[in-house]
Amino acid sequence: MADELPQMTLKAIGFVRNEIKQPVIGGEEVVSDIVVNESLTEALDRLEEFSHIIVLYWLHRVATTTPPPLKVHPMGRQEAPLVGLFATRSPNRPNPLGKTTVRLLERQGNVLKVKGLDAIDGTPVVDIKPYNPGYDSVADAKVAPWIINQ
Amino acid sequence: MADELPQMTLKAIGFVRNEIKQPVIGGEEVVSDIVVNESLTEALDRLEEFSHIIVLYWLHRVATTTPPPLKVHPMGRQEAPLVGLFATRSPNRPNPLGKTTVRLLERQGNVLKVKGLDAIDGTPVVDIKPYNPGYDSVADAKVAPWIINQ
Repeated sequence: MADELPQMTLKAIGFVRNEIKQPVIGGEEVVSDIVVNESLTEALDRLEEFSHIIVLYWLHRVATTTPPPLKVHPMGRQEAPLVGLFATRSPNRPNPLGKTTVRLLERQGNVLKVKGLDAIDGTPVVDIKPYNPGYDSVADAKVAPWIINQ
Repeated sequence: MADELPQMTLKAIGFVRNEIKQPVIGGEEVVSDIVVNESLTEALDRLEEFSHIIVLYWLHRVATTTPPPLKVHPMGRQEAPLVGLFATRSPNRPNPLGKTTVRLLERQGNVLKVKGLDAIDGTPVVDIKPYNPGYDSVADAKVAPWIINQ
């Protein structure tokens, strides 16, 4: 069946620039620049009226041609149960897409300065969306008991 | 510069099945099945311990080879200001990726029943992540004044 699935091609709309050269867990305090392709500068207009944005990016360092494991220990914690890959945020997934909500500190033309982006230097960015609590947050969400919030 | 950007290929991990045959705005009450490729069933294990999940999907009906407009009226509201595409959730974007947080009603093997998915029947799903308020929600977010929450 996998061979019958359609293919879809992404283009980088920009790249992450920061001091993080190797993957780390977390990144709440990291300040990054998102350098957007200059041809798309105008598409950022008035994004600065939002305090937070959603960044979708391609985890290029884990992108691989071998299938990821279907079960993993969340956050690599061996004492945690082995759970389905889609029940975790493991970067090694069928489509290595990352999604982080970050604070937008500043916009200067085609460059967005953000805080909290969980991505290393050079990461291709594939989409930017305004964060809207009315659409993106849930008041009464329940998480699995083996989740540890940092 | 665009020609130098790397290409990244997505695979559908499953498809949306619901009663929505044409794009509509909103979808809070719609119940959908996400039918995941059977080879990935095991990767869903224990996802049902979360009340909400994040679904990333490919807006296949708006996917096009012509570049999207850089400025749009939010939600098509002509009385709203013309703003940058990335300051909106317009489906017609450089990478036509949708992102919705939905309530997970039930999991039966490779089928997830969800409420609130803003996608039409047949939409390819490219990623599923557990929704974790500690990572995905922001307490003090500010949105632009021209945003109207439904």
